[in-house]
Parts: sequence; structure tokens; C-alpha cells
Amino acid sequence: MRNYLLPILLGCAVPAMVSAQSQDSVTIRKMADEVLTHSTAYDNLRVLTKEVGGRLAGSPGMVKAEKWGFEALKAAGADTVYLQECMVPHWVRGAREEARIISKRRDYTPPLNILALGNSVGTGEDGVSAPVLEVSSFDDLEAKKDQVKGKIVFYNYAFNPKFIKTFYSYGDAVKYRGSGASRAAKYGAVAVIVRSMSHAANNEPHTGAMQYDPNYTKIPAVAIGLQDADRLSQRMKDDPTAQVFLKTNCMMLADTIGHNVIGELRGSKHPDQYLTVGGHLDSWDVAEGAHDDGTGCVQSIEVLRTFKAMGLQPERTLRVVLFANEENGTRGGKKYAELAKQRNEKHIFALESDAGGFTPRGFIMSMAPELKAKVFSWKPLFAPYGIYDFEEEGGGVDVGQLNAALGTPMAELSPDSQRYFDIHHAPNDVFENVNKRELELGAFAMAALLYMVDKSF
Amino acid sequence: MRNYLLPILLGCAVPAMVSAQSQDSVTIRKMADEVLTHSTAYDNLRVLTKEVGGRLAGSPGMVKAEKWGFEALKAAGADTVYLQECMVPHWVRGAREEARIISKRRDYTPPLNILALGNSVGTGEDGVSAPVLEVSSFDDLEAKKDQVKGKIVFYNYAFNPKFIKTFYSYGDAVKYRGSGASRAAKYGAVAVIVRSMSHAANNEPHTGAMQYDPNYTKIPAVAIGLQDADRLSQRMKDDPTAQVFLKTNCMMLADTIGHNVIGELRGSKHPDQYLTVGGHLDSWDVAEGAHDDGTGCVQSIEVLRTFKAMGLQPERTLRVVLFANEENGTRGGKKYAELAKQRNEKHIFALESDAGGFTPRGFIMSMAPELKAKVFSWKPLFAPYGIYDFEEEGGGVDVGQLNAALGTPMAELSPDSQRYFDIHHAPNDVFENVNKRELELGAFAMAALLYMVDKSF
Repeated sequence: MRNYLLPILLGCAVPAMVSAQSQDSVTIRKMADEVLTHSTAYDNLRVLTKEVGGRLAGSPGMVKAEKWGFEALKAAGADTVYLQECMVPHWVRGAREEARIISKRRDYTPPLNILALGNSVGTGEDGVSAPVLEVSSFDDLEAKKDQVKGKIVFYNYAFNPKFIKTFYSYGDAVKYRGSGASRAAKYGAVAVIVRSMSHAANNEPHTGAMQYDPNYTKIPAVAIGLQDADRLSQRMKDDPTAQVFLKTNCMMLADTIGHNVIGELRGSKHPDQYLTVGGHLDSWDVAEGAHDDGTGCVQSIEVLRTFKAMGLQPERTLRVVLFANEENGTRGGKKYAELAKQRNEKHIFALESDAGGFTPRGFIMSMAPELKAKVFSWKPLFAPYGIYDFEEEGGGVDVGQLNAALGTPMAELSPDSQRYFDIHHAPNDVFENVNKRELELGAFAMAALLYMVDKSF
Repeated sequence: MRNYLLPILLGCAVPAMVSAQSQDSVTIRKMADEVLTHSTAYDNLRVLTKEVGGRLAGSPGMVKAEKWGFEALKAAGADTVYLQECMVPHWVRGAREEARIISKRRDYTPPLNILALGNSVGTGEDGVSAPVLEVSSFDDLEAKKDQVKGKIVFYNYAFNPKFIKTFYSYGDAVKYRGSGASRAAKYGAVAVIVRSMSHAANNEPHTGAMQYDPNYTKIPAVAIGLQDADRLSQRMKDDPTAQVFLKTNCMMLADTIGHNVIGELRGSKHPDQYLTVGGHLDSWDVAEGAHDDGTGCVQSIEVLRTFKAMGLQPERTLRVVLFANEENGTRGGKKYAELAKQRNEKHIFALESDAGGFTPRGFIMSMAPELKAKVFSWKPLFAPYGIYDFEEEGGGVDVGQLNAALGTPMAELSPDSQRYFDIHHAPNDVFENVNKRELELGAFAMAALLYMVDKSF
């Protein structure tokens, strides 16, 4: 254990004559006290993960989640709560996938831990048995295109550990998940196996959405756990005659009805101007959608609860949006932006949390330079809370729709990224892997940013 | 999931004419690559936690750990590895503790989850049954001193959630663990129960050292899990006649022999000048000593491995010290400082990691202002790695001995603190709760700091 020194709690040290920034620092300190003492985010998350659980667009879980969100926003003190309808895709996984190596040189046919990729087609009842062609990149695929026909292409590109922020490793690798199937179908592949988007030490497969190029045959696509990826690779080297058997039972059904769930705190001065804060309500089916994106939803609800509990009425209307269908369609984000544009709504700012409930370090942002400069001027207010990183450009997928449609300045909570891809889209995205303090600090950071934006933008 | 933008990897963008700081940034980038690609820290930690496990001073685990450390330092490439002998206290827990509420008004006598505090005496074979007096602070104890005699004093002071860095909550509360027993013995208490030093949501008790004031009777002291603390408090309100039965079997034996385990990389220019880096090798007996302080040990070893693997010979001698007996005596740190002083060793800097293997944010430091200014000038080198916080004053318990004896400038790795007290001194301080990337980033940060200090101090 370290030696420690007790600080003077910030709130105790404020002199009688306070400057504007000191008054803000006092309010922000009280916000932190409120959230760290009375937050309901963690308990809300427990209910969302344990009583609702997996909630993919079109599933019963989606419906339960909408009801949960509605009640949670009411309980948080929203003036108005309503559902905003949109069509959502309806993909179902079906029965649990099967895969194994079939090697004539040995009797041993070990099972492989796989998950079908979202939006993919199934193999059909008989499954697929075929030889495997391993490639390390799309360039490697092109170089080997004459060897592809009739085979299962195995994209074995590993997460690059040299990127410090793991989101960059993801950005570098995810194209194989997203478009690997059609790239391989072009040359006659019968299916694809993709090394999971992770650098975790375990064998959990990580699902996620893929997209077909309409010009090519739709072939089944699966993600494989990292240990099994290494094992498959080694086996193909040991026994080039080995094959893999795959059976997936997923299918895309007709679109169905989903909803964005919205709660509002009416603005005191400009109620017709909007500050949006949200996360996505849907999750992959394989776990509980804890960090992706239950934490973003409960943090956004907590922002509203905090304002209400402190008697802080925002000048603009604070609108919490639990977006539908971010994982495999973005229909909720698109509908929200479409209606905002149609109705000529005036949107001041949109904030998303969709990078996990881990310890917050800052915000990524996309806005005009003069607005960024304002945010940078607030750095001293955020520094005591470990919120320091405002440098990165970007925003969330859902608020990104609004930004694209209306040019709304946007930001996204930027937590520490090291643990995110251990659980992302995997069976271990469960409540137990969320830390209460980290979750609360993220909610506080969001509330504080919205407080300052409300006053200053 | 968020939108992402791929950065240009720093190493690719360095122009031909490099300034001194650019050359340092290139070396530091290579250090990060080396650690993030080839680190052995995580594997070393697996062995230390799973094959050695709990390793309190005087225990067989301590001996196994010394052998482990010796081999690990050799494997990391140290020029010299040796043991530095010291005497260590030998406290043993004995059989598992028992405690329960005895309430005449109900048949229900629920067990309470407790752990004896380190260095405390046991209750004796018959245990202790007595009424309980709850106090909220030492002031409250003084106000109730006439009610103490013959009772078990229950210190129920909760971690203050308003401190952002949890080490301050610990500093605020730990006095009840450290000196609560004697303060209560002064007024005739027969034992003390202390609310565990944590804010976790579970019922794990957290042990830790306590000290007796020689002026008062030594009475048994235990820590209680947080849920049981709340339950005990409620039961005493419901039934003021209730008593608690406690049985602990611990005792302090005669001092025995322990060792600091030391590995060195000889300095190229000033081999008689020392840079110390270390963690403490001992751990509490109740778990595996993963974050406390296995991570500090493997990170320190990783620093040496990294220098060696990169062919970077330090100008001063780099000395990795795995300190003995930090948890309940600090004898290892004291012996190291005593011998350094006796031998007139010239110590340039000492760095410790003893705040967990969580994602690193910076360093706490204690050194002359001109040295601090040098470190501050390196902030741009560390910023790309999320290492930004150099503001806090302080240092580790073990290097603190050297700092006290010789005035050696010191620092301690400052990781994010939110998860630390969930596991600190508790049964869940296990390997599975350490994240490989976070561990490696901490080791890298330490290596980079030592590299810069070696060149510049």
C-alpha cells in the first residue's frame, strides 16, 4: 500500500467571493457528491442485465427493455416519457452453432467455439464441410484468390497490440468481420470464419454485425474464439487435408417494429432547443448487454436523475434517448435524426455513451473549433475528477446520425479502453464485469459536461 | 460502438532530423511496442498467484515466493541476482475465524463474515461473547467511553464515496483498523469489529495490519464484510440485548528470517549509482496477492526484461527489489535502506508499484522542485500513452524507507484507483481480476520513466 495524504475536499475551500468558474466548480462538485452518494445507475443496470438480459432488435428482450426504459425514465423524474416508433431488422440466431475440425490423420475432432455473425445467413440443415484457406489480410486473399473456390476462408488477422487505445486495434481489424464474407464469396468461398475482434486471453467468440455486398452470393459467416483460431491455424499446418464442419441456424426475418425510448426534462429558457444524451437500448443476444450498452443507457438516465434531484432545471430541454437497433441496423438513430430534421428541431448538442462503463478519461468530440475552444476552457473544472482527454475527434454511432443530418455538435464519453474488447459482443458482457464507481464517474462526467454546454453553447 | 479514426502510428511519422525529445519519443514508442508485444509480466503473475499464492512473512508461501522471484529475475536477464536477508515478524491466522450474532429475541443466529486483522491476538479457545457497542468515529467512542467496558466495540465508519481517488477514502477510514483496538481497550472493551476498508458491493472482509498501543491490553480485532456490518448494525438496533460471539485463532510467533530478492542490470557509466524499482513480494494470506502486490513485482521485473531485450544498458545500475514484509512490518524496506546507508550507496531515484495493476494514469512523486520540473517537461512524451498525472505528492511504503534514510527522490506508479479497494487484502485479490493490457501499460510507464530519469537526473 502506498503512503497517502488527505486533501482538503474541494467544496470546503471555496472563498466567499466566487468567480464564474469557481461557481461552476462548486456546482460540479455537488454533482459529483450527488452521483457518488445517491446514484441509481448501478441498480438500474442490475435490473436491465439480470431481468431483461440480451435484447437484440426484434426479440422479446427488446420489448422488455423498452418497458424497462420507460419506467426507469419516469422513476428518474422525467417530465415526459414516450416511445418513438421505427422499423428494425429482425435477425435470429436460432439453435446454438456447431463447428469442429475433421482431420483424417487423427481421430480427434475437437469442437470449435464459434458464434454466427449478426445479419448473416445460416448454413442450412446439413451444415457445411469444406477445406479451410487461411488468409492474413485482404491482400493475402487477393494473392490466393485462385485457391478460394469451394473452401471456407479463415481470416486470421490478430488485434495489433501496439495501439494504445484499443478502439484503434478494433478499427484496424473489424473490416474482416464486416465485409470478409462477400470478399471471399467473390472467389467462390462457401463460408468464412473470422478471428474474433479481441485480444483477450480466453476463448470466447465475439459476434457483431456483418454486411453483404449484393453483387455476391450470401455465404455463412462466423467468429471464432482466439484460442480456437490459433488451434485451427496450427491444425491446418499439421494436416493440410483437414476440413472444418460448420452449422449455423440463423436467419434474417422480416423487419418488425421497435422504439427509441425518450425522456425529457423541459428547458427553463429555451424548451424548443434540445440537448440529447443517450446510449443504445439494444444489445447482442449472447450475453446481458452490460457494457454494450447497458452502461450508456443507465448513465444517460442518471444524468436526468441528477439534474432533477439537485433541482437544476436545464435552460434547454434535456432529452434522454435510449436508441433502438444500434448493433445491426442503426434504425433508431436514423429515425431520431429523420424526425428531428422533419420537425425542424433545434439541436444544440448530442452526447452518447457507447464505449463501456469503464473509468472515464475524457470525451471524443466533433464540433466547430470555437465550440471546442469553449470545452477546452473547462479543462480545469474536469481535471480534479480524472477527466482530462478532450483531444480526439469523433462521436457515437447514434448521435452521429443527428450530426450527419443536422450538423449537431456531438461528443461521446471516452472511458479507458483496455478492458472493452475483452467483453465486447461476447458471452462475458455481464453485470459482474461493471464496476459501480467507474459507472458512476462516467455518469457524473456526462452530467457535468451537459451542465456546462447548456449554459455556454 | 463508436465511430473510429485510424491514427498514424507514432513511429511511422518521425522525420529524418530528430530533436532530442523526438529521439526519446522514438525510444519510448519502441519500449511500448516491446512491452505490448513481448511482455512476460502476465505469465509471471500467473505463476506467482496460482503456483505460489498467499505469501505472508514467515509462511511457506514467502519461501516459495523468494525462489520464484530469484528465478524470474534471472530469466528476465539480470546480471546479478541475490537475496538480502532481514528478520520478519511471523503472524499466523490459524483456523478460520468464526463469528455470529446471538439474539435472544429470535432463534436466528446468522454467521458473520470476518477476518482477523494482521498482527492481532486471538480470542482464545473459548472465544468471546459480549454485547456490542457501535461507534461511528473515535469522537463517538470518546463520547460513549463509559459504555465500553465488557463490550465488543464495533467501528462502523463507512468509506466516504465523495473522494474521487479511493486512496483518500482509505486514508480517511483506515485509522479504525490500525488503532481501533487499543483505543477501545483503554476503556475496557473485550474485542473490536471494524467495518472493512472498502466500498465494494459484496460481503468480503478485508484484512490488514493493526498496531497495539503498549499501554493497553491487547484485545482481538477483526474486520467484517460490508453487508454483515450493515446487518449487525440493524440487528443491534432491533435487539439491544443481542450479543456477538467471536472466535479467532491467530497469534504472533517469534520473528523469523526473510529476504528481499534483488536483481541488477549493471550501469554502463555509473555502476555505483542506483536506480531502484520494486514492489513487495509478500502478500496477505487470504488470497493470491495478485494486485497487492504481485503486479508491482512482475512490472518491476518486466522493466529489467525490457531494457535487456531492447539492448538498452542503463547508465546507472538498475536494481529491481522485491521487498519482504511490507504488509505487516516493512522490515524489507527498512533493511534495504539501512544497508544502503551503511554502505554509503549513491541512490539517484527509487520507483515503486504498489497500488494495483490497473490502467496507469501517472505517478505520485516526492523530490526536489528542480527534479519535478524535469519530470513535468517530459509530459508530452507520456501523454500519447494515457500517462498524464504527475501532480500528487507521495511515494511507496518501501521506497519511502530509502527516501526517509537518504532523501532519495522517489515515485510510485499511480493507476486508476476505482477497483483497488474492491480486492485490497480480500479473498478476491486473484489473478483473474488483473487485466493483461493494464498490467503491461503500467510496466511500460515505469520503464519509460526510469529511462528518462537515468539520462536526466
